[in-house]
Amino acid sequence: MPSKPKPLQEIVAENVRRERTSLGISQEEFAARCGYHRTYIGAIERAERNITLSTLEALAAALKLDIKELLVRHD
Amino acid sequence: MPSKPKPLQEIVAENVRRERTSLGISQEEFAARCGYHRTYIGAIERAERNITLSTLEALAAALKLDIKELLVRHD
Repeated sequence: MPSKPKPLQEIVAENVRRERTSLGISQEEFAARCGYHRTYIGAIERAERNITLSTLEALAAALKLDIKELLVRHD
Repeated sequence: MPSKPKPLQEIVAENVRRERTSLGISQEEFAARCGYHRTYIGAIERAERNITLSTLEALAAALKLDIKELLVRHD
């Protein structure tokens, strides 16, 4: 049975958290690299923020990823 | 010489306009399909709006595209 479509916000949240932890950096360190506050990164990783294209660009740049990789579903 | 990185906002703008026109529909018709006002679609297509993930989802759904296709650079 095909899985239910997952909201993009959740896909991005999971990908940011997985990629950040695979870099071995804290939310605090990652927030500093992005130029955001730690609490904003926490909210993004809990899928609580409907982020914009420019935020998506900043996250991907800090993770050294192509932006599209943050939109790929991995489950 | 590698081309200058193009802001995501411009890439999405160009892709939305190209895909919408290839469907042969007006901004008005497309806006109705997305549930947005025509002027908002116009602003998006002129790269004047830093849209959110949920708007990206709505645009891709109305264009019957995978969201990632709206982020692909075509020039």
